[in-house]
Amino acid sequence: MIPTEQAPPVFGRAREFVAPAMRTAVGRLSAEMRPVAEYHFGWADADGRATGGGGGKGVRPALAILSAEAVGADAVIGIPGGVSVELVHNFSLIHDDVIDGDVERRHRPTVWATFGIGRAVIVGDALLVLAQQILLDPAGTLQLDRVADGDASRRAAARIADSTAAMIAGQALDVAFEMLPTVDVAGCLAMEGGKTGALLGCAAAIGAELAGAPSEHVAALDRFGYELGLAFQAVDDLLGIWGDPARTGKPAWSDLRSHKKTFPVAAALAAGGAGAAELAALLATPSLSDVQVARMAALVEQAGGREAATEEATRRLGAALVAIDSPFFVAAAQAELAEVARFVIEREF
Amino acid sequence: MIPTEQAPPVFGRAREFVAPAMRTAVGRLSAEMRPVAEYHFGWADADGRATGGGGGKGVRPALAILSAEAVGADAVIGIPGGVSVELVHNFSLIHDDVIDGDVERRHRPTVWATFGIGRAVIVGDALLVLAQQILLDPAGTLQLDRVADGDASRRAAARIADSTAAMIAGQALDVAFEMLPTVDVAGCLAMEGGKTGALLGCAAAIGAELAGAPSEHVAALDRFGYELGLAFQAVDDLLGIWGDPARTGKPAWSDLRSHKKTFPVAAALAAGGAGAAELAALLATPSLSDVQVARMAALVEQAGGREAATEEATRRLGAALVAIDSPFFVAAAQAELAEVARFVIEREF
Repeated sequence: MIPTEQAPPVFGRAREFVAPAMRTAVGRLSAEMRPVAEYHFGWADADGRATGGGGGKGVRPALAILSAEAVGADAVIGIPGGVSVELVHNFSLIHDDVIDGDVERRHRPTVWATFGIGRAVIVGDALLVLAQQILLDPAGTLQLDRVADGDASRRAAARIADSTAAMIAGQALDVAFEMLPTVDVAGCLAMEGGKTGALLGCAAAIGAELAGAPSEHVAALDRFGYELGLAFQAVDDLLGIWGDPARTGKPAWSDLRSHKKTFPVAAALAAGGAGAAELAALLATPSLSDVQVARMAALVEQAGGREAATEEATRRLGAALVAIDSPFFVAAAQAELAEVARFVIEREF
Repeated sequence: MIPTEQAPPVFGRAREFVAPAMRTAVGRLSAEMRPVAEYHFGWADADGRATGGGGGKGVRPALAILSAEAVGADAVIGIPGGVSVELVHNFSLIHDDVIDGDVERRHRPTVWATFGIGRAVIVGDALLVLAQQILLDPAGTLQLDRVADGDASRRAAARIADSTAAMIAGQALDVAFEMLPTVDVAGCLAMEGGKTGALLGCAAAIGAELAGAPSEHVAALDRFGYELGLAFQAVDDLLGIWGDPARTGKPAWSDLRSHKKTFPVAAALAAGGAGAAELAALLATPSLSDVQVARMAALVEQAGGREAATEEATRRLGAALVAIDSPFFVAAAQAELAEVARFVIEREF
């Protein structure tokens, strides 16, 4: 979680709007599923006792609220969008942990590790459907006084369905990549664009969609979120190799140890030559020693993979900011979107 | 699959309308997921070779088409509804097999047994989202000339989301029941209403919803499908105990062997007395001999469980037919709905 004093003020505002609606939404789940969801969100422990914590970083709700404000609407209109995107994001976390066999998330055992694969699959499914119900009937599901009209709600629901489909396709590509010896840069970007870019694009556009903004303004906001997602992912890839173990909570060169073919690795392989060949051979080595992992990190860096990922992050952040650089957007909200983007990226470096 | 000469003609008509649209819909999945879905539908084998078969019984598409016709609309309007309901049904089959650990379906290895749990989870997710995309943008996704207007599409999408949520809650209840020593009749009906009734109700109503029919007519059709679902489930529960192994493809007393607490068992337990106590003790016995399983079947029958389930099937079928007994519905379609209902139930006996 972000310490409040460091984060841009919009995070606090978004939390105030979206957090109660998230509780209302999750409260709609049946008694068999609700405790599992509350555990996942960090609101309760595995025995159902309230923790008083949880809720994640809140980047997506902040973008959804700003996206309504950027087109001159009241933040309230964006609430169902923020809730829906947050539900889809968490559906994907719960299912991805099943798919990847990951046993820990946010320093706690994952849902499937705690409640079993069956309940993790069911509760993920339930959150995904809930995300649709929230957008298709915001007044009924969230008991809000002011909601978008039916046509805007339908377009918002279609937008989140399309983004979710892209996200799932990205995850399917990621799983397929694990079987491949190497991955090229284009494939890597397609995968990351789906897994991370699509839903962040939706988060940044859905408030404007709910507000009934013209489609080209909605598309520009989507582009902002998509590019921000790819910038974030490039930074995440850098941290996965060169991140400080004390800050990431993972061992040094973590992604290389687990043979993850991320952007820096793909860029290094694309450089060709003896270094790339040695790197490819190490990627194909099932069990790696510390010396071998350190050698891989050095090879990726020598072949320009680290520099390429750093440039990618900067370029994508720039593209995100260009996308919303338009007089159509309310200046204050535009400035806050830029602030969120810089904060998300810089915090990670 | 139903031999065409026995089935009511609407099955063939529905197949003609919905089967090509199903292929178009599944064709939208990415290259990593499409072969897994095509295997599940029986269109291809595990190596991706076309089988020329598959497609399931087609009850849901038939109901969706008739539901449009029943309110005086063209069957074409119901196509996206038929596709969407069929996609949700198949999402649930793929995930339920993961959740229940079932290795065989329709005489073939299940998706997770063939492609692994990860891919089964992902492809199920993708079908669920596809079902929403089809309803929210029928023209774009299915390339149909004539589709429902935006408002009807939104209501249809909300309807299928609500039914899917009820179905998932029913599945969660079913999983929870496995942990309990016994289950009461009300709990059993709540579970079956969710697992089977909700989506059949949606199938029988969604064509009318897409056609923009008045809400009370849509609700009556939903009630028809819901009651039919519970009738079907009561018959299925009877077959799960007393079905002919040569016809069901399962061993005799199959559900009792696997300790399933279905309606006949719940009804027998509710009768109380020494028989119910003996039945409860056998239900709590981890590994059952053939003699013990035969004894359970006799106990359920003696306590009236078989008769109660038979009566339940008849009563629910009657309630289904009453629900659509209204001059508002087009007589020919109404007659065909009744024909489908009787066929679905009688075929199973």
